[in-house]
Amino acid sequence: MSLANRSLVTIDDLSNGEIEALFSLADEMAKSPDQYAGLCQGKIMASLFFEPSTRTRLSFEAGMLRLGGRVITAVDVGATSLAKGESIADMAKVVGSYADIIVIRHPWEGAARVVANYAGVPVINAGDGSHEHPTQTLCDLYTIRKERKSVKGLRIALWGDLKHGRTVHSLIYALARFGATILFCPGPGLEVPEHVLRRLSTEYKGELKRCRNLDEQPGEKLVPIDAIYLTPNDPHQLAMLPDVSVRVELKAGVDALYVTRLQKERQATTVKEQEMKRGYPRVDEKLLKGREFRRTLVMHPLPRVDELAYDVDADPRSMYFKQAAYGLPVRMALLSLLLGATEVQVPEDKDSFVRRTDYPVYKRDSGVKCPNANCVSNQQTEVRYIRPEFKIVNRQPLTLRCIYCDHELTPRYVASTEWHQGKLENKKYHSADSHFARKIRAENLIVFASAEDARAHHFKPGKYAR
Amino acid sequence: MSLANRSLVTIDDLSNGEIEALFSLADEMAKSPDQYAGLCQGKIMASLFFEPSTRTRLSFEAGMLRLGGRVITAVDVGATSLAKGESIADMAKVVGSYADIIVIRHPWEGAARVVANYAGVPVINAGDGSHEHPTQTLCDLYTIRKERKSVKGLRIALWGDLKHGRTVHSLIYALARFGATILFCPGPGLEVPEHVLRRLSTEYKGELKRCRNLDEQPGEKLVPIDAIYLTPNDPHQLAMLPDVSVRVELKAGVDALYVTRLQKERQATTVKEQEMKRGYPRVDEKLLKGREFRRTLVMHPLPRVDELAYDVDADPRSMYFKQAAYGLPVRMALLSLLLGATEVQVPEDKDSFVRRTDYPVYKRDSGVKCPNANCVSNQQTEVRYIRPEFKIVNRQPLTLRCIYCDHELTPRYVASTEWHQGKLENKKYHSADSHFARKIRAENLIVFASAEDARAHHFKPGKYAR
Amino acid sequence: MSLANRSLVTIDDLSNGEIEALFSLADEMAKSPDQYAGLCQGKIMASLFFEPSTRTRLSFEAGMLRLGGRVITAVDVGATSLAKGESIADMAKVVGSYADIIVIRHPWEGAARVVANYAGVPVINAGDGSHEHPTQTLCDLYTIRKERKSVKGLRIALWGDLKHGRTVHSLIYALARFGATILFCPGPGLEVPEHVLRRLSTEYKGELKRCRNLDEQPGEKLVPIDAIYLTPNDPHQLAMLPDVSVRVELKAGVDALYVTRLQKERQATTVKEQEMKRGYPRVDEKLLKGREFRRTLVMHPLPRVDELAYDVDADPRSMYFKQAAYGLPVRMALLSLLLGATEVQVPEDKDSFVRRTDYPVYKRDSGVKCPNANCVSNQQTEVRYIRPEFKIVNRQPLTLRCIYCDHELTPRYVASTEWHQGKLENKKYHSADSHFARKIRAENLIVFASAEDARAHHFKPGKYAR
Repeated sequence: MSLANRSLVTIDDLSNGEIEALFSLADEMAKSPDQYAGLCQGKIMASLFFEPSTRTRLSFEAGMLRLGGRVITAVDVGATSLAKGESIADMAKVVGSYADIIVIRHPWEGAARVVANYAGVPVINAGDGSHEHPTQTLCDLYTIRKERKSVKGLRIALWGDLKHGRTVHSLIYALARFGATILFCPGPGLEVPEHVLRRLSTEYKGELKRCRNLDEQPGEKLVPIDAIYLTPNDPHQLAMLPDVSVRVELKAGVDALYVTRLQKERQATTVKEQEMKRGYPRVDEKLLKGREFRRTLVMHPLPRVDELAYDVDADPRSMYFKQAAYGLPVRMALLSLLLGATEVQVPEDKDSFVRRTDYPVYKRDSGVKCPNANCVSNQQTEVRYIRPEFKIVNRQPLTLRCIYCDHELTPRYVASTEWHQGKLENKKYHSADSHFARKIRAENLIVFASAEDARAHHFKPGKYAR
Repeated sequence: MSLANRSLVTIDDLSNGEIEALFSLADEMAKSPDQYAGLCQGKIMASLFFEPSTRTRLSFEAGMLRLGGRVITAVDVGATSLAKGESIADMAKVVGSYADIIVIRHPWEGAARVVANYAGVPVINAGDGSHEHPTQTLCDLYTIRKERKSVKGLRIALWGDLKHGRTVHSLIYALARFGATILFCPGPGLEVPEHVLRRLSTEYKGELKRCRNLDEQPGEKLVPIDAIYLTPNDPHQLAMLPDVSVRVELKAGVDALYVTRLQKERQATTVKEQEMKRGYPRVDEKLLKGREFRRTLVMHPLPRVDELAYDVDADPRSMYFKQAAYGLPVRMALLSLLLGATEVQVPEDKDSFVRRTDYPVYKRDSGVKCPNANCVSNQQTEVRYIRPEFKIVNRQPLTLRCIYCDHELTPRYVASTEWHQGKLENKKYHSADSHFARKIRAENLIVFASAEDARAHHFKPGKYAR
Repeated sequence: MSLANRSLVTIDDLSNGEIEALFSLADEMAKSPDQYAGLCQGKIMASLFFEPSTRTRLSFEAGMLRLGGRVITAVDVGATSLAKGESIADMAKVVGSYADIIVIRHPWEGAARVVANYAGVPVINAGDGSHEHPTQTLCDLYTIRKERKSVKGLRIALWGDLKHGRTVHSLIYALARFGATILFCPGPGLEVPEHVLRRLSTEYKGELKRCRNLDEQPGEKLVPIDAIYLTPNDPHQLAMLPDVSVRVELKAGVDALYVTRLQKERQATTVKEQEMKRGYPRVDEKLLKGREFRRTLVMHPLPRVDELAYDVDADPRSMYFKQAAYGLPVRMALLSLLLGATEVQVPEDKDSFVRRTDYPVYKRDSGVKCPNANCVSNQQTEVRYIRPEFKIVNRQPLTLRCIYCDHELTPRYVASTEWHQGKLENKKYHSADSHFARKIRAENLIVFASAEDARAHHFKPGKYAR
């Protein structure tokens, strides 16, 4: 099967079977690198990094060069014509006419999607703001699979900043898809966002349990207060009581401990933040002496700061430098597949833990905008050609998800195209949570963020508009 | 014919025939890229970009790589030893000993000429301040020729900021050389500078007509107020009256509409500038509905901001992304020719619309300097080894043109080496516009910017010194 | 002999014989470049430049490309994850898993040593702060050897800023090793640091003479006041009296004049510094008219500012652009040797002018730190894993040399592990210069920078603690 001309913007752009096939190819490439040294000869990769990066950029570039391909690089927004007010769509079209594949990192969420839409060549998202970083997720999965054969059924604890890290959100969905049991161990104030949890519970198989009152022994704050436990594959083990402690869960042993860095944007500027930093969980040899970590893979996306001690480096359970090193074969496999330089046998997807959901689309010009200021659809240079667009992921409460950055909004008012038939006097709007609103079919739905917006579109308050 | 070891600093460094030959090679390279994949094997291109650029740098680099060559890159003055006070001549010599060809973009006007003088290898100017950007001009010409077979006799309207854009000035001379009819349609306050017009009228064949009082219909400001019309090849059509409107001229139809961006340095900071920005002409689908644009190629050097609407992108007349894409074969052809990797058949130059002018040179050390503060000859690091040098392009009024940046000056005073024969008491200076001054032969001419300069060189005011 | 998997952090990492062998290979590569065009095929060099550089980086990259290898580059600390607080050790490990060899320039002294310790692949120091720049030294030696066959016995004058330049300190040791006679001609206030002189006199063969009261003729300040004269190979010529002027020495003629730039960190900000700048010696054609310079190679590491006039460029004695150009074959030879792509015959080291010294090591955690604030061992991100470590290079006065940056310190207090046998009441410290202190064997030595440090480690003042 050929993956030629496909893009990888989010980890969902690849099926479980495709990921498995990619990993098999990565295995081959790691084993016999010489055999693949000319695979991408004559091909050019453009490496466009509008945010700091060492490992990601250099591993993509090294990967392309090891396949015999060539690389052109732009590393700083200041050194490019984006400084002249150009849109990323224009940039994508032009670079797409020089290169055979584009790797992009950009601070705006959804930027990689836009580049993929306009470039005319395959595009790989190397991190778009706090949105996704799918090749990091591939490296994480590949590391686990390499060391434990399969992800399915493993118990994996996620540790630290589960709120901001894009690597973690991508990883959570990916682990869920492959049937891992996930234990969330966030630092104080750094819990997994609700929208991630909701998405986990609606779009992936398995059950989600929240454990509030932890059975903590004083002075032994092994794990932070709030824990959430996702067990997609062992429903019979889910008879958890609200008071079952995470400690007890951890005691059963974990297969992998995924540690994350406190994100820069959260670095201590206020007193409260400094406290948060002090309370940030730290993984060191002392912690890893616990029975529950006896066979645990210690993982980290790097760069680390203080959350992962240097004394772990010599421990055979430490996986983080292997993770980084696996970036090479994984990215080589990905590049050669998207460039169509090789094909793979894709296994059947019989074990996928994804619930397929075909959400209706909303793209009327009714003034509703993505609430994320950092979304590509809200940028001055991009509004010239991008219209906001959403998936209707829930009707009660009515919830729209931005197709670019996956942020969600719950608009206040709705109307229906059926009601007014173009007659001005029939143009009425109602509260989104009224029983009336629920009856509107998705294809007729008109959504307003506010009463002002509704009035601006010549709608008047209806009976059920509070 | 071999173009090996030649440099391209201004578009005039190539004859019409050489440009045609280069285009034929570009055609071949676009048609059968695989055939040229190893043409520059073993060659190294140094890509030195001291100003922001995406498309130009990446297209040069992609071009070199597609020819099998290799690339070394320096993209920021801050990251190089120029920060240590090194001259660009020293930098050029050193880089010239590592690379086989140098591509340079630099903010100083004339910098590429200096690099070409010192590097010892071929140098390509990828933009030197507001001076020239000859490969952009090649892409523009190539696009027109590709779509309309020949430039000769075409009616081409230039639109927008005709004052600051280096791409536009290079293009104007090039279009004149190939015998196009050019219609200037500047934004308010953004007219073609007088020195460009004078040069057009003296160094190129054809006639220049100015149309002042335009026959404008109220509310239909299709074209800005001032228009200048160059028709090098159809002198019989030149019986234009001053009141013939540009509109009428436009009505005859144009073959290409070349749109330019309002240059950054003009971006609205004062009230007057904000007005200028508002008055900037905008090209969109509505404008292009006009009969006169029925078969018009819509061109733009990119990046665009607001002067060219996104709704034109899908229009088959839009050429700007093609223009950018043609950068690849055009630059590939150029690189391989200057590297001597291939030769071409150069057609005879029978149709050139250039008037050959061999201006005398002025390089005496009489204190006269280029008036352009941004000229390479005025930079602190460069005055250590560069002497100002000029072409005497006019005697009445006496006009010197800087050989580095092409800026012109009209010095106030002159003297002659013949008069004084080394005797101090005979050292007299006279006004440059006196009848006396005109009699001095070019080889004897001494020029002073001011009376102070003259006195500093021990000259006293003569009879005709006002 | 294979040099595979070795690193070049300081010039001392290569023996005289290895340097000779490397130069022979460089000769071959310069003579028949085509023969080596595929030598490093399939190999990747990572070029990590955390400080400005043109010539060094581009020559390494060009060298690698000319050997058929490939390059990945990171040029600015701002564009990498060091900005996220990552240690250079972590960065080294990760990049070492992508590349086959690493070239690093870093502002911290000792940084290259750390990278070499952690990368797992060969590392080349391309300049670490004011510490070393060994490939520049190789180019300097290669130039001299190329023009004069051998360095041994040559008279070489070092000129200008002998205090700050890292290129000069590396070069001094290297010239001493190869048996050159060195004449130091510093600018005022820019003398060779004492620690360099001491090291010269203890670790290299030859004698060091200081000439204070120079026999200067008024108005002819050919050479600055203080001069130091190292003659390793001609002890019979060393009967110099203190009043023998440097002028007289110079008059005997010099084989090479090595000019250096006034380091940026010394550029005139105060009145005193501006005077220093004015007094900085300048080399120009006038100076070189002297008999003593008749056959002198004029060398400079570049970039130059004003210390070396442009009028020397055309002089056949000028070597500086050759020096830069030789960077290519020298670095090609080095890269291919460290990558194990080729082997060389290493001649016997019979002429080395090095005195072998095996200094004992001090690495107890007694609070003593390198005094150099810019040393890698004092950086916030690095203290997480680096312990200070020193060589004990002298006992009277007790002198420790940092193994990372070679800076020295003379600690105030000492103790011995023998004395206290773990008993708290016996833990006493004494002055480092007491006769008592000298009796402590190196392996028992405990060193304290201050009385506070000693007390913090539970030691009390002993009899001989002043």
